[in-house]
Amino acid sequence: MKITDLHAQNDFKPFGPSKLLVHESEFMKVINFNFKAGQGLPIHSHNLEGELVICVLEGEGFFLSDAGQTPCKTGDTLVCPIAVPHGVTATSDMRVLVTIAPPI
Amino acid sequence: MKITDLHAQNDFKPFGPSKLLVHESEFMKVINFNFKAGQGLPIHSHNLEGELVICVLEGEGFFLSDAGQTPCKTGDTLVCPIAVPHGVTATSDMRVLVTIAPPI
Repeated sequence: MKITDLHAQNDFKPFGPSKLLVHESEFMKVINFNFKAGQGLPIHSHNLEGELVICVLEGEGFFLSDAGQTPCKTGDTLVCPIAVPHGVTATSDMRVLVTIAPPI
Repeated sequence: MKITDLHAQNDFKPFGPSKLLVHESEFMKVINFNFKAGQGLPIHSHNLEGELVICVLEGEGFFLSDAGQTPCKTGDTLVCPIAVPHGVTATSDMRVLVTIAPPI
């Protein structure tokens, strides 16, 4: 059992996303990204089986897909096959938790 | 791709946890539980392979294990094998996201 205080253990960086690998195992990968406004993960995909969850822990921005962008805020959760293009961009300081299963 | 607004789609209930099944697939199960103060998930385990993540989206309480209780708050994340006893109890209104992979 492992407990992580994301607020204490991950910060914001002026020049790009701040990434904290929370957990990695045969079952899943869990990553916390902190974005300053304007930062994010460009739309991308991987030709692999599996799914990912992006949960907005704090802040506001947009979920990105081939269909365009969808506003998102604290408590919004995106579930997506890894093979389907996805991304996120922040319009305020934003913390997200990304869970990928199986891990890539 | 599926986007869920947890705040809009799940509420709090006076007599027990309010559960929203966010996603279920061959890869994972994602559940949002909302707890009023005093509510929670009693310590339990399943004799199965896999892991779970409990992320506190809002509020305060305790993560429970055989070793006792650990205070938790917004942004704290517990990762735990499904077979290891775990639980959570709220001391304020509390929203958590639970991800289980592979799903049980």
